[in-house]
Amino acid sequence: MAEKANKVKARLPRGLVDRHPEDIRAVDEMLVKIRRVYELYGFEPVETPLIEYTDALGKFLPDQDRPNEGVFSFQDDDEQWLSLRYDLTAPLARYVAENYERLPKPYRSYRNGWVFRNEKPGPGRFRQFMQFDADTVGAPHVSADAEMCMMMADVLEALGIARGDYVIRVNNRKVLDGVLEAIGLGGDENAGRRLTVLRAIDKLDKFGPEGVRLLLGKGRLDESGDFTKGAGLDDEAIAKVLSYIETGEIEDNEGVQELREIEALCAAAGYDDGRVKIDPSVVRGLEYYTGPVFEAELLAEIPNEDGQIVRFGSVGGGGRYDGLVSRFKGAPIPATGFSIGVSRLMTALKNLGKLQTVETQAPVVVMVMDKDIESLGRYQKMVSDLRQAGIRAEMYLGGAGMKAQMKYADRRGSPCVVIQGGDERANGEVQIKDLVEGMRLSEEITDNTTWREARPAQFSVAEGEMIEAVKRVLAAQAEDRLA
Amino acid sequence: MAEKANKVKARLPRGLVDRHPEDIRAVDEMLVKIRRVYELYGFEPVETPLIEYTDALGKFLPDQDRPNEGVFSFQDDDEQWLSLRYDLTAPLARYVAENYERLPKPYRSYRNGWVFRNEKPGPGRFRQFMQFDADTVGAPHVSADAEMCMMMADVLEALGIARGDYVIRVNNRKVLDGVLEAIGLGGDENAGRRLTVLRAIDKLDKFGPEGVRLLLGKGRLDESGDFTKGAGLDDEAIAKVLSYIETGEIEDNEGVQELREIEALCAAAGYDDGRVKIDPSVVRGLEYYTGPVFEAELLAEIPNEDGQIVRFGSVGGGGRYDGLVSRFKGAPIPATGFSIGVSRLMTALKNLGKLQTVETQAPVVVMVMDKDIESLGRYQKMVSDLRQAGIRAEMYLGGAGMKAQMKYADRRGSPCVVIQGGDERANGEVQIKDLVEGMRLSEEITDNTTWREARPAQFSVAEGEMIEAVKRVLAAQAEDRLA
Repeated sequence: MAEKANKVKARLPRGLVDRHPEDIRAVDEMLVKIRRVYELYGFEPVETPLIEYTDALGKFLPDQDRPNEGVFSFQDDDEQWLSLRYDLTAPLARYVAENYERLPKPYRSYRNGWVFRNEKPGPGRFRQFMQFDADTVGAPHVSADAEMCMMMADVLEALGIARGDYVIRVNNRKVLDGVLEAIGLGGDENAGRRLTVLRAIDKLDKFGPEGVRLLLGKGRLDESGDFTKGAGLDDEAIAKVLSYIETGEIEDNEGVQELREIEALCAAAGYDDGRVKIDPSVVRGLEYYTGPVFEAELLAEIPNEDGQIVRFGSVGGGGRYDGLVSRFKGAPIPATGFSIGVSRLMTALKNLGKLQTVETQAPVVVMVMDKDIESLGRYQKMVSDLRQAGIRAEMYLGGAGMKAQMKYADRRGSPCVVIQGGDERANGEVQIKDLVEGMRLSEEITDNTTWREARPAQFSVAEGEMIEAVKRVLAAQAEDRLA
Repeated sequence: MAEKANKVKARLPRGLVDRHPEDIRAVDEMLVKIRRVYELYGFEPVETPLIEYTDALGKFLPDQDRPNEGVFSFQDDDEQWLSLRYDLTAPLARYVAENYERLPKPYRSYRNGWVFRNEKPGPGRFRQFMQFDADTVGAPHVSADAEMCMMMADVLEALGIARGDYVIRVNNRKVLDGVLEAIGLGGDENAGRRLTVLRAIDKLDKFGPEGVRLLLGKGRLDESGDFTKGAGLDDEAIAKVLSYIETGEIEDNEGVQELREIEALCAAAGYDDGRVKIDPSVVRGLEYYTGPVFEAELLAEIPNEDGQIVRFGSVGGGGRYDGLVSRFKGAPIPATGFSIGVSRLMTALKNLGKLQTVETQAPVVVMVMDKDIESLGRYQKMVSDLRQAGIRAEMYLGGAGMKAQMKYADRRGSPCVVIQGGDERANGEVQIKDLVEGMRLSEEITDNTTWREARPAQFSVAEGEMIEAVKRVLAAQAEDRLA
């Protein structure tokens, strides 16, 4: 009873999840493909730790409706505040500022890693998730932004998403700033309201023009009964914003010029075939963007959590953040970059059936028939020999009998088991049981499935021929899978 | 002035470091090699998040001399305490307890990832570092521990460490418990002092027998003037402990029996050739071990931070921890595992000259001679074509002139640059400048190094032949490197 009362409950905090073999292997393969594109573009890897000084990270999060503003923070033993990084951009800005002199300029770099948001978790919304970023620091011209857009397109295609099934949408914060100025939201004193308007526009995908209209005005009540306070614009201002989003029409300004240059550069390299498009509704929810902003959107229609068929939407994005490195240096340092939401993109690829992972052969199981130390030594030798021959293999390590061991091998999906009891030992033989063929034969008998000449599902070979025999079984199974 | 005062200082908290290209690439290659061995042994990947409930992690750290006991902790918004994981074993125990029914038993799994220690950092001692673990849960017999030892040996060889340059040393906590009982330290009430004695023995490598003698007695004053309080044993008890460490002699007990079985299993598979050895001085500093403990030690002598030639020492270890999963389940669940210190092992491989990374070709640089949008489009097209041909390439993205661009290409280690100014454009040509050959020629002139027929260090080709010409330059350079 006392034992029971002291038992610790095995559970995870909300919004945190364990990762299983299929997902781990899939993400590893995705990372290799993404990395290959970044390297091709001349980017170099660099990684920062997961903990930074809170002040170095700044406060640039989109959803600051919780007391500690979306960041996990704690005090060091010298009382200074530390935080877990919430993205990979703020730490990169710190890194570049700290190492500015010794880096080549412009400095192209990439990194992937876990980031943390201390937010209310929800479906598909976690408190730890993986991003894979690329950034160029020290490149003032929009050719760097154009390169980002083209590289994002190349990344999506490298991951198996067909041309036409995605688009990189581009806009410019400077254009949006022109719109905001036109409705009287210029100046430092309106920074907060400007951000509210931008985040309202950012929800166009999710809530449609009517939803955005509400968020620009008094506010919006969602299905769950939660009310989001709006930007409080009057009808005339709302009309101006909506008209801009829908038509893209606006007076010529620096921002529009920059977009034309991005278009021209993408066209020169052939990316104007629908891969990269100017789109006035792109805003990105982060405060720190200062120029071009871009978003990678999957056009494929995929069932969502509720089974509705919807566009999958954004799987990454970024933009120019000329102020982020400057915060440390006190001098203007231009920078642009983008971030791929790896976990989210993996979900999309899974739903699209594009997640092909290299098949991993389940291990051959050497069964433990006799438990004296001499017999265990022989089984150990068998499993070592198999491994040295490059065959994935296990010796059964539990305490259970023959039946439980067969069940274990089934559960592992083993191609075959190796058995040596007293009789086989006396004859200098081992038995090999082909579990795949055994399963096929038993299905053939019960289901009358297409007959083909069976190979023996269980047979004996001399001890010295075990490896060759196992190899033959694996080869025959591989052939069956291809047939 | 106001700007200056508001500047944030770009710096990292103590004990945290950034990772650079060479190390990132090297660790990636190490992880692939380690993973390959684990997979061959039938282990499956599984990963847990970096944050856990503090009570789920328990308190099993070796150095608890700081107020928050070595762990970074913070409160969730529901007041529950969360911590960053300090190893990969405690989270695995939580994972297995939570998913016990649906896992195959025995359950072999592996994982790598960052762990955190809120400790005083020092040379080679970081607050964030990487481990790569393998564990078998549900295997009560020491054959599982023997497998761990052999797998560790295989991992070290897969990483290029020659047989004879390392040893897996094995002991058993049950044997040590026998010694401790013999000197009157049995029973729950002596748990704390037992741990102090174990940690004293664990320092044999570092401080020698005299240092251990001090730590078993009143205590030890180190060079820096720090005093470590000892276990307070009397002379007779100290003599008994030291005699056991040096001779391994002890009455026969269950622990000794288990070690004999591990020896026999390793011998059966041929690992008794010096790869796996019983060694009475191995203890492992962690509190949670209950049976066999093992340590992977590099025998190679390597210069340490102070330039002294020393044995590199431990690069990983582990043991049986039958109580760790049981904490959650209230029923005994046997488990054993080991952990590779990836960052530490990388340092060792680097010092040994065994860290061979696949050479990464630096990017070809397309220079920006004219800055009108039409010219930029042409340069953009060139760099896109190069990339599509699989050649790592960059368009210069900075604002600087010809000289600075050449300096940039040098700093990047570029094999060649592509140049098209107005004259070349008029002729439909590009110039290609071979930077490696250029460097060689200039060295030949000044240093009189071995003469060989030079290929042209700079030449013009028709625009349509750029890619083929760049490929020829890369091929010629590759040939020179091999020669």
